[in-house]
Amino acid sequence: MAEFMDTHRNMKGITAEQLKAAHDADLAIQAEEDVVFKQAWADPDSGVVYCLSEAPSADAVRRIHERAGHAPDDVHPVPIVV
Amino acid sequence: MAEFMDTHRNMKGITAEQLKAAHDADLAIQAEEDVVFKQAWADPDSGVVYCLSEAPSADAVRRIHERAGHAPDDVHPVPIVV
Repeated sequence: MAEFMDTHRNMKGITAEQLKAAHDADLAIQAEEDVVFKQAWADPDSGVVYCLSEAPSADAVRRIHERAGHAPDDVHPVPIVV
Repeated sequence: MAEFMDTHRNMKGITAEQLKAAHDADLAIQAEEDVVFKQAWADPDSGVVYCLSEAPSADAVRRIHERAGHAPDDVHPVPIVV
């Protein structure tokens, strides 16, 4: 399993409740692709959301997000962490 | 103190040692702006690095990164976290 950071750029005005609902929608189906979404950070003013996950591939992250209704703008593996 | 996520997009080929050295350069001076860099994630293939911090402002994050030799491409407050 590798770590990935993905970004959404169209979430302007997102509330804490909406971020939790989006995250819960990922959690509900993530096991089908062996993805584990770990954390998400949102900036409602700019509409950017960052999601950190563990997954077998970037495509697996993308598929879960797409099926949950919020396709990411990019997904990057982040093999180096400090 | 608020949380911030900043991004660097010109770090192609960065190694674990280089990320640690860059992070250590931030840690060495961060107290001068009341910034606390918490974690950094790097994708050496695309050259993107994400940094999570706690700070009094985005400008404080930017100033520490600039003085440490690696100005960020963007800094976003992330007041909503799940």
